[in-house]
Amino acid sequence: MSGQLAGGDLSRLRQLNTLAVVHALRRQAPRTLREVSRAAGLSRAASEEVVHELEAQGWVEQVDPAAGTMGRPARRYRFRADAGWVLGVDIGGHTVRAMVADLDGEIRHALRQPVSPTAGRAERLAVVDKVVAECLAGSGRTGAEMWATTVATSGLTDAAGRVVLSVALPEWTGVHLAEHLSRLVAGPVMIENDSRLAALAETWRGVARYAQNVVYLLAGLRTGTGLIINGRLHQGFAGAAGEIGALPEMGWIRAQEHLRVWPDAPAGTDSEDVAALVFAAAREGDRRALTMVRRYVKDLALGASALVLALDPQMVVLGGGFSRSADVLLEPLRRELDKRCIRTPEVLQSALADDAVALGAVRHALDHLERHIFDPGSGLAAPAAPKR
Amino acid sequence: MSGQLAGGDLSRLRQLNTLAVVHALRRQAPRTLREVSRAAGLSRAASEEVVHELEAQGWVEQVDPAAGTMGRPARRYRFRADAGWVLGVDIGGHTVRAMVADLDGEIRHALRQPVSPTAGRAERLAVVDKVVAECLAGSGRTGAEMWATTVATSGLTDAAGRVVLSVALPEWTGVHLAEHLSRLVAGPVMIENDSRLAALAETWRGVARYAQNVVYLLAGLRTGTGLIINGRLHQGFAGAAGEIGALPEMGWIRAQEHLRVWPDAPAGTDSEDVAALVFAAAREGDRRALTMVRRYVKDLALGASALVLALDPQMVVLGGGFSRSADVLLEPLRRELDKRCIRTPEVLQSALADDAVALGAVRHALDHLERHIFDPGSGLAAPAAPKR
Repeated sequence: MSGQLAGGDLSRLRQLNTLAVVHALRRQAPRTLREVSRAAGLSRAASEEVVHELEAQGWVEQVDPAAGTMGRPARRYRFRADAGWVLGVDIGGHTVRAMVADLDGEIRHALRQPVSPTAGRAERLAVVDKVVAECLAGSGRTGAEMWATTVATSGLTDAAGRVVLSVALPEWTGVHLAEHLSRLVAGPVMIENDSRLAALAETWRGVARYAQNVVYLLAGLRTGTGLIINGRLHQGFAGAAGEIGALPEMGWIRAQEHLRVWPDAPAGTDSEDVAALVFAAAREGDRRALTMVRRYVKDLALGASALVLALDPQMVVLGGGFSRSADVLLEPLRRELDKRCIRTPEVLQSALADDAVALGAVRHALDHLERHIFDPGSGLAAPAAPKR
Repeated sequence: MSGQLAGGDLSRLRQLNTLAVVHALRRQAPRTLREVSRAAGLSRAASEEVVHELEAQGWVEQVDPAAGTMGRPARRYRFRADAGWVLGVDIGGHTVRAMVADLDGEIRHALRQPVSPTAGRAERLAVVDKVVAECLAGSGRTGAEMWATTVATSGLTDAAGRVVLSVALPEWTGVHLAEHLSRLVAGPVMIENDSRLAALAETWRGVARYAQNVVYLLAGLRTGTGLIINGRLHQGFAGAAGEIGALPEMGWIRAQEHLRVWPDAPAGTDSEDVAALVFAAAREGDRRALTMVRRYVKDLALGASALVLALDPQMVVLGGGFSRSADVLLEPLRRELDKRCIRTPEVLQSALADDAVALGAVRHALDHLERHIFDPGSGLAAPAAPKR
């Protein structure tokens, strides 16, 4: 058996060394060559060669020595997380949000703007355009600098980036979101379901960081779910997973109806605000409000129980707009799950609340880049937006 | 960068070569060294060395040349799938089944015996003992030769091999099946839920062989489900996945009640036979029977729709005792799913019917062996039953 490495193996080894050095520098304070060499498990000479190559390409840069440093300090290097950017957009019924993040996922600018739930397609798209433009400006970047963009929407989407069906926003069905956004940004534009993206965010920066199996509930003026199964966001065979709420027996279609009317609400109060009044009254012990909340939770728990019994997750995460009132929702939800489930998992409040969907969109865009740029199969791509 | 392989790498290379040769010989007609060398991608000399080593260990043997072969034929070798054995046991409400299989999963003997659904724990265990003893005898093996055993039971089990909860067989709750079976066989004894094992069998030898996402329905005098998600049998965080039928709203508790009574059935007819009479009458177009079947399917479809909407599987497989009457069940089931689901997947009849659970137990025991004996991390273990 020969112990020699062939040419292909050597080039492969070089790719792996490059990624090891990138890994040693990403999301770290600037490091000296000695520190890089130790963290990457490479010889000093090999590390230096790779670092200089990455510097020439624009992936790595030298950092100025700290002021007041004595003598001749060792040069330190950092990964240029600002070599590229991603955009996450959340198009909701009541609000449009956008976030610009660097390659390490640091949010550099975030922006939100309300939109009427009854807005037509053109009006909603106009708000999207405005929010994206202002968020880009706020971050000091341009659309041309966005290497990848993910847009969250309610409903079902197809691979081409069209909304195939939106029950929550009927005028939205058929809109070609990917095409629309592509006029605003460079790089690929991906469209995903909002509940699924919120679940993804929760495993990234939320309470589900160390969980492999999670039922995430997007609780608000509509109810959705995103499922994390064996550590992966579950998409389903045709990307239609998580639509259990469409089954009337699961209670999610009628759940929020219990929170629509509150006598003390001035006429014309937004539905989200009416629900907030009910939650506030329940918090004060108002019996009528407590009954309304109990009915809501009972319906929410029906679908949640079906998911818990089917999947036996480690935790249920309550997210979405209503999760800000988790103090009046979590205990009743636990009790309802206890009644129906064989094993009740932990029930936790989302750490991200309203930001979850947009954060999930950012994570989704970053995941796309990681697969294409930091690819152990073909090494590191040049620092530029991937082709659409 | 050095191109030399260290000592540890060489020993690892030898392990991989050994597994490559085993792979070239398993589940194949006997092969010559030239054929092994080509299939394993190794030099003739390296293949010969490994084959002789495997022969000395008892994993491989020479095959006599075919009668009438002219000249001096090349020696041919085969993998000794009969170096070890596994046992699969299915303890059902009405029937106990056992199967003995070799290391390649060939079933060498299978046996079934009826048991009364109202049998007590001792009586049922006595039938299990008898079926296992007769199946071993029929296969010409002994319990000491069983390298791994998996036992299928309804209900929830724990890691120690106890039945934690059985709704279908109340006297069964608390029985320590692993301990009981360990008196009969060598090697580890594993206990698993029957619906999950049936789903596993369907991905091994059934209609779901090439599917990554499957909702398997065990339809019979009780209804269960096994979920295949991203190519893996889904167990859940605490091994309690697939229990959606426990939720009354899912219809599975009452579904089979629609098939319990048939006027033409003689008094004392077994429930399974009553259902068969209803299916037979429905097949002939009897209106009363068709109504009963429609009601049954409607309830079955409720839970099935919840699973389809939640998971968006590639296919739904109808298995279990009732799947023998798939000709009168599949079309109504498709129609009901169509009414409720956003995307209706293929709905297929199980290819394995009543044998699915025991076959799944065999596959489960083999999977355990594959992980421990044919391990790419540590190479090939000696041919002997793994330690308990």
